Amino acid sequence: MSHLRSLRDLFVHELQDLHSAESQLLKALPKMERAASDPDLKKAFSNHLGETRAQLERLDRCFASLAAAPGSHTCEAMKGLIKEGEEIIGAEADPIVRDAALISAAQRVEHYEIAGYGSAKAYADILDFDDLESLLDQTLSEESKADKKLTKIAMGGLLSKGLNQEAMAPHRS
Amino acid sequence: MSHLRSLRDLFVHELQDLHSAESQLLKALPKMERAASDPDLKKAFSNHLGETRAQLERLDRCFASLAAAPGSHTCEAMKGLIKEGEEIIGAEADPIVRDAALISAAQRVEHYEIAGYGSAKAYADILDFDDLESLLDQTLSEESKADKKLTKIAMGGLLSKGLNQEAMAPHRS
Repeated sequence: MSHLRSLRDLFVHELQDLHSAESQLLKALPKMERAASDPDLKKAFSNHLGETRAQLERLDRCFASLAAAPGSHTCEAMKGLIKEGEEIIGAEADPIVRDAALISAAQRVEHYEIAGYGSAKAYADILDFDDLESLLDQTLSEESKADKKLTKIAMGGLLSKGLNQEAMAPHRS
Repeated sequence: MSHLRSLRDLFVHELQDLHSAESQLLKALPKMERAASDPDLKKAFSNHLGETRAQLERLDRCFASLAAAPGSHTCEAMKGLIKEGEEIIGAEADPIVRDAALISAAQRVEHYEIAGYGSAKAYADILDFDDLESLLDQTLSEESKADKKLTKIAMGGLLSKGLNQEAMAPHRS
């Protein structure tokens, strides 16, 4: 980690962490899409892949504006979050239960990003970087919507479907 | 990972993941408290240590009710989150900037838990485990309050104090 002598240093560090997180996610999302069975869930992952690309571009615009660079920092938390997603993909699982587990893993990712962009936006606000604050706010809003969309898929039928299936095949529970 | 054949399997797996996460956090919080400078932040970490103990007890009650056990699963995401916290503790940093960075790291932890308990509560709801749903809801509410408390500390003066200090010592920025 670079020295944290000023809030500006911390702001750049937060952006570097988010850049690493989004870059890792860009590689993981297609695998999550392939592992999902529910068509709405597949579509949600596919849509979020496009959003993630746009979010990385916004981060690049932040770096350009600050005359900074993404650097070589690795977001360790996202590394762990993706490892958990891979465990779910590789597990022996009922397709509906796997979908539910993928939603839970993806919501952990969304919440990581909500916290990260929330902090970065607060720093941009305090440092009077209005343009950057607006860019970060766009992404924050997308992450919150992605999280709500996943809740809607889970609660809008997928979990009940999983439960019904269990009731019809009691030997499996 | 154990097999995910049913929603009940997934529910137990979520609880095991949260148990590992809380256990790791229990060891990390005293280090974060020692590294913090702001008295309100120190107090927030210290209070959350007590809450974390109570949350672990609630998880143990869930396992007892389900005739299940925490098992040996390691929450990889919390491992990464704590590694990031340790990087901040070990970095060369201005005390106020370190406090801001610790808040950001702690909010990522809170959001991880908010997502995790949110999923676990949804499964308890669908599976009609009303008592467990209520236990998980208590913890979820504490995690949300802890997150808001950290935002209050950051926005209620700490970040502005960091900025003022920078303005008074421009050679450092």
